[in-house]
Amino acid sequence: MSDGDVEKILMTAANETRGLAMDAIAAANSGHLGMPMGCAEIGAALFGILLNFDPSHPDWINRDRFILSAGHGSMLLYAWLHLAGYEISMDDIKNFRKSNSKAHGHPEFDKNSGIECTTGPLGQGVANAVGMALSCKKLAVMCNTAEHTIVDNRVVCLCGDGCLQEGISSEACSLAGHWRLDNLIIVFDANGVTLDADLSKSQSEDVPKRFESYGFEIFRSNGNNIRDFVATFRNAELSGSGCPKLIIAETIIGFGIDEVAGTNKAHGAAGIQFSNAAKGKLGLPAEKFFVSDGTKEFFAKKRIERGKRYGEWSETFGEWKTKNPKLAGMLERNGPIIFDDSGTIAESTAEKMSTRVASGKILQKVAKSNKLMLSGSADLFSSACNYIADGGDFSAKNVAGKNIFFGIREHAMAAISNGISYEGLFRICCSTFLVFSDYMRPAMRVAALAKLGTIFVLTHDSIAVGEDGPTHQPVETITSLRCIPNLDVVRPADYCETAGAWELAIANANRPTALILSRQDLSSLEWINSVKKRRGVMLGAYVAREETGNLERIIISSGSELHLALHVASLMHGTRVVSMPCMEAFDRQPKHYAEDVLPKACKKRIAIEAGISMPWHKYVGSDGKVISVDDFGYSGRMSDLLNSFGITLENLKEFAECP
Amino acid sequence: MSDGDVEKILMTAANETRGLAMDAIAAANSGHLGMPMGCAEIGAALFGILLNFDPSHPDWINRDRFILSAGHGSMLLYAWLHLAGYEISMDDIKNFRKSNSKAHGHPEFDKNSGIECTTGPLGQGVANAVGMALSCKKLAVMCNTAEHTIVDNRVVCLCGDGCLQEGISSEACSLAGHWRLDNLIIVFDANGVTLDADLSKSQSEDVPKRFESYGFEIFRSNGNNIRDFVATFRNAELSGSGCPKLIIAETIIGFGIDEVAGTNKAHGAAGIQFSNAAKGKLGLPAEKFFVSDGTKEFFAKKRIERGKRYGEWSETFGEWKTKNPKLAGMLERNGPIIFDDSGTIAESTAEKMSTRVASGKILQKVAKSNKLMLSGSADLFSSACNYIADGGDFSAKNVAGKNIFFGIREHAMAAISNGISYEGLFRICCSTFLVFSDYMRPAMRVAALAKLGTIFVLTHDSIAVGEDGPTHQPVETITSLRCIPNLDVVRPADYCETAGAWELAIANANRPTALILSRQDLSSLEWINSVKKRRGVMLGAYVAREETGNLERIIISSGSELHLALHVASLMHGTRVVSMPCMEAFDRQPKHYAEDVLPKACKKRIAIEAGISMPWHKYVGSDGKVISVDDFGYSGRMSDLLNSFGITLENLKEFAECP
Repeated sequence: MSDGDVEKILMTAANETRGLAMDAIAAANSGHLGMPMGCAEIGAALFGILLNFDPSHPDWINRDRFILSAGHGSMLLYAWLHLAGYEISMDDIKNFRKSNSKAHGHPEFDKNSGIECTTGPLGQGVANAVGMALSCKKLAVMCNTAEHTIVDNRVVCLCGDGCLQEGISSEACSLAGHWRLDNLIIVFDANGVTLDADLSKSQSEDVPKRFESYGFEIFRSNGNNIRDFVATFRNAELSGSGCPKLIIAETIIGFGIDEVAGTNKAHGAAGIQFSNAAKGKLGLPAEKFFVSDGTKEFFAKKRIERGKRYGEWSETFGEWKTKNPKLAGMLERNGPIIFDDSGTIAESTAEKMSTRVASGKILQKVAKSNKLMLSGSADLFSSACNYIADGGDFSAKNVAGKNIFFGIREHAMAAISNGISYEGLFRICCSTFLVFSDYMRPAMRVAALAKLGTIFVLTHDSIAVGEDGPTHQPVETITSLRCIPNLDVVRPADYCETAGAWELAIANANRPTALILSRQDLSSLEWINSVKKRRGVMLGAYVAREETGNLERIIISSGSELHLALHVASLMHGTRVVSMPCMEAFDRQPKHYAEDVLPKACKKRIAIEAGISMPWHKYVGSDGKVISVDDFGYSGRMSDLLNSFGITLENLKEFAECP
Repeated sequence: MSDGDVEKILMTAANETRGLAMDAIAAANSGHLGMPMGCAEIGAALFGILLNFDPSHPDWINRDRFILSAGHGSMLLYAWLHLAGYEISMDDIKNFRKSNSKAHGHPEFDKNSGIECTTGPLGQGVANAVGMALSCKKLAVMCNTAEHTIVDNRVVCLCGDGCLQEGISSEACSLAGHWRLDNLIIVFDANGVTLDADLSKSQSEDVPKRFESYGFEIFRSNGNNIRDFVATFRNAELSGSGCPKLIIAETIIGFGIDEVAGTNKAHGAAGIQFSNAAKGKLGLPAEKFFVSDGTKEFFAKKRIERGKRYGEWSETFGEWKTKNPKLAGMLERNGPIIFDDSGTIAESTAEKMSTRVASGKILQKVAKSNKLMLSGSADLFSSACNYIADGGDFSAKNVAGKNIFFGIREHAMAAISNGISYEGLFRICCSTFLVFSDYMRPAMRVAALAKLGTIFVLTHDSIAVGEDGPTHQPVETITSLRCIPNLDVVRPADYCETAGAWELAIANANRPTALILSRQDLSSLEWINSVKKRRGVMLGAYVAREETGNLERIIISSGSELHLALHVASLMHGTRVVSMPCMEAFDRQPKHYAEDVLPKACKKRIAIEAGISMPWHKYVGSDGKVISVDDFGYSGRMSDLLNSFGITLENLKEFAECP
């Protein structure tokens, strides 16, 4: 088939995807027409010509990745994934945005459907793409040999003005330029319009200049012309600049619905009332959800072609595997790290140290037993102690390096880490001060929603930070993270509990984990069996000290405050101490375990944590009490702060003695 | 005094501030030497020559504003504020980072001390400065006449690489360029180093090009040379480009401590061990906290000079006041809006409407009675309904416009709004989807910490968002905001409660308020007296429906779910309904009011809210139950979602009937 013939078929297909979008959005009575109408030719060029993938092998490691960062344009993605042969059926499209459909309101990570990541919260998809490009480059450097090329794919991200206005895309793109991720192609749907108004209301920046400043190579294209877009894309991929690429594709938002096209009214579903007329002008039949035989035939052939290409790669991969058994073994994900109960872990328990230092020591062991472990920091390796000692520093020149210097860019760090987690081969932890987890919270939420195993190493966990003052003292932060569903928040109390926290984090392959670590040194709780401690952490909570005599009261605590609880209990008969490093894990345990740890009959309960009281009421009940920090701290000595908020032995003892 | 003499004295003073920083950080045994050592000459130039202010009138509306965005360099600020004559005493400096000192670890908003805003969380200060510059420009346009110039000040922001790496600074500076804030001068301390490493580890972007792309005019200076910096600054302020300015001031971090200068070791307190030698090389005596007579004398004279300048302005202002009594009256802050109980508020209560629409209607009344009310949106005016109908659109050409189009830049929006709130004249509300408040959370936290009256209008408040799916459905978000101390989170249930929510927000002049609004229409709760409803909201919670007969159970609820509660109660004897739109306000009430609303004797309590259960346990107690949404939602019809999570009449009735 000539290029001209292909183009003709794809122009028809593009209009048919416009029809699918209009029909699906009409049926759902909600959705966003702007992008599926405006970017139909970009979709045609990418899914009909440019992208290299095989719907029959959706987890092919060398597939091109396509990320729709402007997730609200989801019908664009579903229409093309459907035509290409992924597991998005016409029924899914007919039930767009309904509970029984894979065509969700915004794309949700699902490899089999060809949906590479969950998008919608703007800007994050760009950072996810940067993470995937980083991951793919690392894989290429690791696997490719003089004889065999196993990985040479591209990561293509389609985004709009919304994504590029968000600060996270600035952070991520500055890093992409710095890292010279030449396998990354960002397609910018430049339609000059946002939801509320023309772009000129909120912006006059020079976008190409901005991206040049990051180190991108800039290309321009007519996004509503397949031939032009294909030619531009090919120029970009053939460029030897070594830079990531930005293709500025000018499009008309809502193209095809003349009444709204080119205006902010085209963004949402407002144009749907004009769809009959639009269909006529686009040469589409009135039939709903129409796809022509020509289009079907083209993609059926294309699919066979793609299968062949996969087959060829597969053959190369087979040869490579035989010659590189060790490397091939690496591609199988390393299993969870199982700590040796009696071995290295126990060695250093007697030493007094902060849990951040403990975490750093444990990370070294994790990284030794899992060669695909990566670690990053937003300029706080030195505080969060998560530098992998023999890992080398990742850079454009040392792609194999395991330590990633993200700069002071927490949000991009989290979303890039998520991009790596979507990829699924590497496991990553990334670090900052706990209080600044607020800066990356949007990406932490998506990690939880998309079931990613990203590990967040968060240090300086309370007012005990002291001198740095309230801007740097978390008070509400631990609990605000506990609010996020499917995120395990773990606050260990000593070295062994920290080991347990890491075990839990590693086991949480489909759930992010936030490790909440102390700045200040903590003693080792030597009298608790180390195996028990680590298992206890995995269970979320455990009896750290049995009561002597009859059970009269329970003190529940986490982290540094557990030490106070144990001390007070040692002075008072009938006092049980429950260590509760992870509420989420504890809430997953069977009822009988919960009853074993916190027997209902014992109403006298005291919780102590140097943070807000909110989450503890559930565990202490109406007759219980919470010693907490419910206001911002201040700048001062740690001891002054702890005293003034009542996080003291004396205060806890008084509470415990109170009848 | 010749320029040369002044320069000489200020060079000495600069070294003395280095001495103060070393002594204070040594005494505190913590702190950050990098910037006070590296930027001493910039401090000298600004506080000794360039900035126009009067320490005796710290709230002078025409003073130049100085914002230290790199808040960890706080000793720079304290040293110069002290020398200039602000209320930062030598004792404060001697007690740097201790609880009895105004010299906090990081700067905390305190006009009398000359501290214009709370900084430390990086990048936000840049956005605060943008907000202040916007505020000052608005004031100038409002007040200046052909005869009198009342406002012609500048906003000067000192920041480092950390601030510029944070995405929020990209968002804010793009807006500053778009708005052509030519009264804004950003001084970039370009020292090529971050905490962890050389800047080259995490960055290779072309910073001047980046800022040119935003529409900034770029200047370069040697930041360690007073004469050069002063000349550059004067060039910048005299430029007629109409652009905001970026002065790239190259400095040596930790200048003066040769052992660490120019390296990342200079960032924190590590250099302190070399301070004796450093003092010698800088020509300082060994005496701690030394300031020479020459320096004291210079600043004493300067203070008199500054007082005179203020006096001159004051005279002009007096004349202006006489000639422009109406405008002068505007400068007195409008008091809180008092709604007329029987008047316009009550008019529309019978109408069924979403609380976002209700909020929009009420905002119109607020804006009518308070001419200094501003409103902004991160591209969601149309959804959050907070556009001021006759306010005009703020732009470079229409500075008087009251509606600010922030683009899809939530974080900058919040911090720019905070900048406006620090200024204190204008009152601002800003809007986005509730779920995306995560993007601006770091700035919401600072608003709460710095006691700013910023109002956050947050719509689409639960899984009832439906079709847009879990990326757009808040589940944990309301509660994660409730976690933040000193932030009032208000979730009204109908038009009148929304009016009460706005009353509370307006009254909260020293506390930010988050208005949590529904996307879906809600009936008007007509049977509750509208005055009672609005007063009830101000109290945080109130009895929305008295029980018939003896009190058997209490249903507590907020927002849309209150309607279910009232319906169920109407079917069941002995059932009281408590509307609890604002937990924070309720917790501030005296105990007797709490007992009136939620009598301890009634143990059977049910809370229902379409969000996580965590905060309700405190109010329902051990015997209570919570109907909640403790997992992410999905894409589907609103009714499907509410049904599947049990947010239904039937389910609530079943819970209520259960013995």
